[in-house]
Amino acid sequence: MVSRINIFALDGVPLVKPGDDLVEIIRDALIFSNERLQDDDVVVIAQKIISKAEGRIVSLNSVKPSSQAEALATKLEKDPRQIELVLQESKEIVRSKPGVVIVEQNLGLVMANAGIDRSNVVDQDNNHDEYVLLLPKDPDASCDLIRHAINERLGVKVGVIVNDSVGRAWRIGTTGHAIGVAGLPAVVDLRGELDMFGKELLVSEQAVADELASAASLLQGQASEGKPVVVIRGFKSDAEKQKATALIRDREMDMFR
Amino acid sequence: MVSRINIFALDGVPLVKPGDDLVEIIRDALIFSNERLQDDDVVVIAQKIISKAEGRIVSLNSVKPSSQAEALATKLEKDPRQIELVLQESKEIVRSKPGVVIVEQNLGLVMANAGIDRSNVVDQDNNHDEYVLLLPKDPDASCDLIRHAINERLGVKVGVIVNDSVGRAWRIGTTGHAIGVAGLPAVVDLRGELDMFGKELLVSEQAVADELASAASLLQGQASEGKPVVVIRGFKSDAEKQKATALIRDREMDMFR
Repeated sequence: MVSRINIFALDGVPLVKPGDDLVEIIRDALIFSNERLQDDDVVVIAQKIISKAEGRIVSLNSVKPSSQAEALATKLEKDPRQIELVLQESKEIVRSKPGVVIVEQNLGLVMANAGIDRSNVVDQDNNHDEYVLLLPKDPDASCDLIRHAINERLGVKVGVIVNDSVGRAWRIGTTGHAIGVAGLPAVVDLRGELDMFGKELLVSEQAVADELASAASLLQGQASEGKPVVVIRGFKSDAEKQKATALIRDREMDMFR
Repeated sequence: MVSRINIFALDGVPLVKPGDDLVEIIRDALIFSNERLQDDDVVVIAQKIISKAEGRIVSLNSVKPSSQAEALATKLEKDPRQIELVLQESKEIVRSKPGVVIVEQNLGLVMANAGIDRSNVVDQDNNHDEYVLLLPKDPDASCDLIRHAINERLGVKVGVIVNDSVGRAWRIGTTGHAIGVAGLPAVVDLRGELDMFGKELLVSEQAVADELASAASLLQGQASEGKPVVVIRGFKSDAEKQKATALIRDREMDMFR
């Protein structure tokens, strides 16, 4: 285990638009911040700017709610256009009540509103109120692309995480969760190390990618888009590299739906 | 929001025994590590050493399982003495199946095995296999005492978190959770800041104490007791100071039990 970790947020990240080259943006922000990436750094990127760069912005006015969405929206006291998108972005509704809809999002993530974000989404004309952001289609692939581009263009081997603020079943407030991972382990299996007592090991796997995502979230905040790119320096693990899908509990093992 | 956080683990923390003075241990470890605390540092202390110092060690041989515990242990294929302790430490069983028992622990935390830990518990004679560790009785109070003692004896005003590795409903692996908090906010309400869209704000509260607990967990690891004390420097919030109980969702709002 390392004994020191430094975390810093890059300054100078502009508002991201569909089609933007995030590695170019990160490179410029590094220069602006007077920082350089090093091998083994973990670059944590807020889901919002990945979604924006990948064009996952939807105008609510363009959404035609199905009759199913209309009925559900009435029941849940929500915007039928938003519910239509939630249904499109989900495999199933896990729980719902007026004002709340918790789903299994298409990526397998159990979360409110399928991770669809209505805050801080601005179109080209600074019109706030009619656009929403969907989660990236394949955040593991997004991480992998960015990781390789950073390696190719900046000459360093980093890990990349896409993080999102996600709520929990029994806890108040959101924490940073890793919804995309490349170049580092997502879950570190400690069972071998801990095996001093017998079979029954209570703590065996550490979700390090979620812990890194949470650490970065402390610097990103949630209210502004000012600091969506955070660098974590000092985390190193010899465990196997994994995708963020390694963090998702199989449905058959899920005791809470 | 801050833009840089440094996290370091203290070296030189000895094996903790019941009755030990943790502030004395932290002071010695700071000297050994050639570090000094500063105002606004957050000191994150692993639950295990709080429990040990507070004497929350139980010899399994001293536990007489009730008939209820015996029956449940048979059903769950667990040690009846451990199940007896789980029942004593819990308000209710939330889910169970062979090998797994998830409860509402007496503190309100929903977690496996009531947070009772069988790993790395050693008695004075280095006998590993008959001792378990219960969670502290009142970790918020433990934090408060330590915070005040640090202020009095070391002359700095820090925040204190007791963290534990806790599993999640839908995610693989544990992450650091704040089970005790003093001198800093546990949940930061962002609703005012985000209110640019209307009523429906999807992300509104950030569980910063859990994020700090997770960040510290990256340095503590779980397998060894070597680094149970971690210092986080650079986190500052003007939000109201809270206890860790602020992180617990009210039962009436819980959709998952």
